[in-house]
Amino acid sequence: MALRKTRTEDGAQAPDGDSPLAIIAGGGPLPCVLADITLGRGRPVHIIGLVGEADEAITRYPHSWMKWGEIGKLFSILEKNGCRDLVMIGKVTRPDVKNLSVDFGALKSLPFLITLGTGGDDKILSSIVNFFEEKGFRVLGVGQVAPELLAGEGILGKKTPSSDDREDIAVGFRVLETLGALDIGQAAVIVNAHVLAVEAAEGTDAMLSRCADLRKNRYRFRRKRLGVLVKAPKPGQEERIDLPTIGPRTIERAAEAGLSGIAIGAGRVLIVDREATIAAANKHGLFLIAEAPSDG
Amino acid sequence: MALRKTRTEDGAQAPDGDSPLAIIAGGGPLPCVLADITLGRGRPVHIIGLVGEADEAITRYPHSWMKWGEIGKLFSILEKNGCRDLVMIGKVTRPDVKNLSVDFGALKSLPFLITLGTGGDDKILSSIVNFFEEKGFRVLGVGQVAPELLAGEGILGKKTPSSDDREDIAVGFRVLETLGALDIGQAAVIVNAHVLAVEAAEGTDAMLSRCADLRKNRYRFRRKRLGVLVKAPKPGQEERIDLPTIGPRTIERAAEAGLSGIAIGAGRVLIVDREATIAAANKHGLFLIAEAPSDG
Repeated sequence: MALRKTRTEDGAQAPDGDSPLAIIAGGGPLPCVLADITLGRGRPVHIIGLVGEADEAITRYPHSWMKWGEIGKLFSILEKNGCRDLVMIGKVTRPDVKNLSVDFGALKSLPFLITLGTGGDDKILSSIVNFFEEKGFRVLGVGQVAPELLAGEGILGKKTPSSDDREDIAVGFRVLETLGALDIGQAAVIVNAHVLAVEAAEGTDAMLSRCADLRKNRYRFRRKRLGVLVKAPKPGQEERIDLPTIGPRTIERAAEAGLSGIAIGAGRVLIVDREATIAAANKHGLFLIAEAPSDG
Repeated sequence: MALRKTRTEDGAQAPDGDSPLAIIAGGGPLPCVLADITLGRGRPVHIIGLVGEADEAITRYPHSWMKWGEIGKLFSILEKNGCRDLVMIGKVTRPDVKNLSVDFGALKSLPFLITLGTGGDDKILSSIVNFFEEKGFRVLGVGQVAPELLAGEGILGKKTPSSDDREDIAVGFRVLETLGALDIGQAAVIVNAHVLAVEAAEGTDAMLSRCADLRKNRYRFRRKRLGVLVKAPKPGQEERIDLPTIGPRTIERAAEAGLSGIAIGAGRVLIVDREATIAAANKHGLFLIAEAPSDG
């Protein structure tokens, strides 16, 4: 067995450390954080920013820009820079179908783009991975390239969940598992073992704002902090290119919603700025716990 | 078998036509509509309005008022007016726990009130029904008293769902069935077989507003009308006191969200003002269909 091939957990080939890692970048700070970590390990990077999504900060690194649908351009960027491995990271919004005609020649050959907007996210994301792999690229998960960006198991801040909180957490993970079978969301809010909100297409922030409204206008409880945000990938989800993410803002919103804390799937949720996230949790008196899936 | 005992479907005793029907009234026009139907059949009514929930219009009928938690008062009203059968109808919000101490002597004896805010709605509603039945009252469903308020099977307006719509409808009913096992919501919005939104505690109107925002800001489709609101009770839900409801406003909101139509569970969803509801669907070009659950 060659040395290079033993490093990753899931049997995929280990990253080829000589070629630059292509980082296809959506919004937020994570693409740059990932670039720093990769460079710190001595591997060059080339960031490919999605126009309208990626942050201007990527221009500090070797980079190119592409628009949604410019698949022909993407492949020539990858080829020109000698990239064999790619990672997709950062927030993206579903593209507007009307703007997808820019690179129409390439687009026609891509069955996966045809599926955009038809069916759940899972189907789309698996098609994207398969598509790149058929072309000879390796699609790597963030966990393979920078495992330190994922939350390990355990309590991350100062506060510990109570036994009531633990019950809400258990209900939450059960709910996410069931929802996952329907390819719905990656998050839910549980209060007193009751499902207050389920995330589908609107995203976690919008769901938490809704919970804050509900708590203000319709549900009032004696305890000041009550209930939990549970966030984890869907079972069987393509975790290489769509990991759920939390950050300081998630903590702020959860605090505004009066929640007691946040539970995430250990090793399966990205933390944007871990230090600031934990500091925010401590400041607002919320617990932050990463749990491995239970058996059975 | 006595004549009176053969009228209802579910083996419950038939309503006692001589005693006034007690209508415990939440918000909206349905309590008065139900009173009119009952009076039209020659049976007297006594409406018990929940303060802060029921409409002033109930004062046109024999009536009393009670606050959340005034269980002692409720029983004396029922006794004074010779009521043996009761129906609960109209919109209620979960009571503020802090305001529940008004009738504390009675409250302490009620395990079901203790469960308020702990666990899903189903558990609470079943406890309420059991509680009344243990005291010798009959809790009747709207379907037993006024089946004309429920949507029968079939297409209700002018428009017919397309085959794409039918696929969304089928996905929607499957989603609701799965969610029901978690005691979550009674509604979901499906677009292109993808779950756009799931209703938990926020209610159908809030969910539809969210869908309108998503359609405006994040998802744009070539077809003007696309997707379906599916609404039905949870499987195993206590249908006697918590039927999902639609009305003209539901249609307006669904139209604003760009949906193609609405599918409801036949015989298991209340329609507030059927005529205005169907007229609104026709005006906006939405289909409105009631479907019986499929086998298997």
